[in-house]
Amino acid sequence: MTTLADDLTLQTFITEDLTSFVGTQRGRLSHLGPEIGDFIDVAAEFVAGGKRLRPAFCYAGWCAGGGDPQDRRIAWAAASFEWLQASALVHDDLMDGSDTRRGKPSIHRRFEARHRDSGLQGDAGQFGMGAAILLGDLLLSWADEMFHTSGFDQAAIARAFPYLDACKTEVVVGQFLDVVGQTKAETTVADAMRIVRFKSAKYTVERPLHVGAALAGAAPETIASLTEFGLPLGEAFQLRDDILGVFGDPVVTGKPAGDDVREGKRTVLIARTYELADADGRALLQRGLGNADHIGELSALIRDSGALDAVEQQIAGLEAETEAALQGITDEAARDRLYGLMLKSTRRSR
Amino acid sequence: MTTLADDLTLQTFITEDLTSFVGTQRGRLSHLGPEIGDFIDVAAEFVAGGKRLRPAFCYAGWCAGGGDPQDRRIAWAAASFEWLQASALVHDDLMDGSDTRRGKPSIHRRFEARHRDSGLQGDAGQFGMGAAILLGDLLLSWADEMFHTSGFDQAAIARAFPYLDACKTEVVVGQFLDVVGQTKAETTVADAMRIVRFKSAKYTVERPLHVGAALAGAAPETIASLTEFGLPLGEAFQLRDDILGVFGDPVVTGKPAGDDVREGKRTVLIARTYELADADGRALLQRGLGNADHIGELSALIRDSGALDAVEQQIAGLEAETEAALQGITDEAARDRLYGLMLKSTRRSR
Repeated sequence: MTTLADDLTLQTFITEDLTSFVGTQRGRLSHLGPEIGDFIDVAAEFVAGGKRLRPAFCYAGWCAGGGDPQDRRIAWAAASFEWLQASALVHDDLMDGSDTRRGKPSIHRRFEARHRDSGLQGDAGQFGMGAAILLGDLLLSWADEMFHTSGFDQAAIARAFPYLDACKTEVVVGQFLDVVGQTKAETTVADAMRIVRFKSAKYTVERPLHVGAALAGAAPETIASLTEFGLPLGEAFQLRDDILGVFGDPVVTGKPAGDDVREGKRTVLIARTYELADADGRALLQRGLGNADHIGELSALIRDSGALDAVEQQIAGLEAETEAALQGITDEAARDRLYGLMLKSTRRSR
Repeated sequence: MTTLADDLTLQTFITEDLTSFVGTQRGRLSHLGPEIGDFIDVAAEFVAGGKRLRPAFCYAGWCAGGGDPQDRRIAWAAASFEWLQASALVHDDLMDGSDTRRGKPSIHRRFEARHRDSGLQGDAGQFGMGAAILLGDLLLSWADEMFHTSGFDQAAIARAFPYLDACKTEVVVGQFLDVVGQTKAETTVADAMRIVRFKSAKYTVERPLHVGAALAGAAPETIASLTEFGLPLGEAFQLRDDILGVFGDPVVTGKPAGDDVREGKRTVLIARTYELADADGRALLQRGLGNADHIGELSALIRDSGALDAVEQQIAGLEAETEAALQGITDEAARDRLYGLMLKSTRRSR
């Protein structure tokens, strides 16, 4: 039997719902001209490659909160997180000057290339930037629209709004802390962890869980348990991301090797390396961050300083914390689902 | 007696509500560090200088739709449009490379200057861009949050959502058409008017009217009348803006003289000039648009070609259309209010 509770079915429904939502937007807007049809196609294509992680947490929150696992509306509501994430990625790549995303040119680079290839008037870089800013804005609006057109009654939507609002605010604030962090000469592990908490743990795990649980009308204790589960898991998720950002296989991650190093990101992994390295190591770190030529040397330093092991240990500790928090979830099926998501988030290769 | 129906009182309440909303956000977020408190201060300061035009239309729509003019909740809901507009302006200035807004440095320039003045690490321009993108994203989220926390019951909010969603989508699509328009060698009056319709007429006038009316539970005929009134008025509003963008007094507009010319904007005024100018004039236009050195010459061309008069006539025609549409509004007080807004929008100097 096809059931929503089956991971693959959930993914299929989410993809179907995103496609259906885009179809409605296309019907409404594409008469405005080929440029708009094209703009919408880019959005649709971009979201096709997502990992659907936030929707999976939203669905898990719904189940933990006592929602009917077969309720088709939750897939639609959960899918809206993919637009939020797509919006954040499009803007993030522009801010970071990233050339690729999900194995393809990033959105601003794609529009920049089109401008150049077509010999259009004006500056290609500015055109790429404008298109990426606007596409990100559009996707942020689509996230809201898709969420509140999920078919849930207004009382359920109203229960979930505070968590969704918090999610949207926290991710921006976390990213701003990140941008500010990159302007400082040094980043402590504590600073880097604060960014991880907002930019990732709350945004990727805790809030999607809360939104799903609130839609289901979860008890306050369930919401609290989901925080205890979600925050350490979200932190572990981001620490894994940091490791993949340096040591991940480009074919699997869709990002060039050492991309975080090249961009000069002040991750926990980098902060820990700074903490553990000797004077020579620190000098190399300050010289090499944000510089594509030093990726090999820096990777070696991160490993040899013991920072990689330290972060792996931190992930293991957070995993243990996450697992312990699962005891707060009473429904057995919901608990199994959360456990599965935990493994997927912290032991992944992309 | 102090009544909401009084323009100045509405403005005061809107400012109060925006301040109160910011206070809540500050309470929730500023413990994250001085950078975040500062980020929020910039948002609060930015929105302090708005004309409150979209809230005024939202309130007028509420009255036209049969809402109680004294209902305090409508000021709060209407105020949310100021965040939407602030978000659009912050992103717009970044895309256009504008240095000033409302008589002060634009947001990206402000953060860029801070970076430079404090001797921070990394590229100042990239920091300014990142801060402006994120602030715009935050304000877009605040628009939603403020709107749905207005205290209206969920049924009213649900009635208004489709209009608010349309508003948010249309402004982005209109801006994208604008960005695309600037990459073409020529812009026809028809192309420019299409952009005006989406970027301004729907976004600034029609949709705020609809949102207010829908909150009040307006009849479909009222919604239709507000479209008939709002679209020509919104078009006239933007045409006035185009004229002020070239001929406006910088002290009053808060923008340098000829800013639109310097930025190479393809406004209806410019498209009309192209249509009416002779070969020499067209050559000057192609040479001078986007170039600060030719502002004087281009202003003269716009005037001497007859384009300025033609656009003034177009505004007068749209005003007549708008006035005729007022007959569809049955409530006399609401009609008077809409008439007042019409005059304010089309005969302003800023």
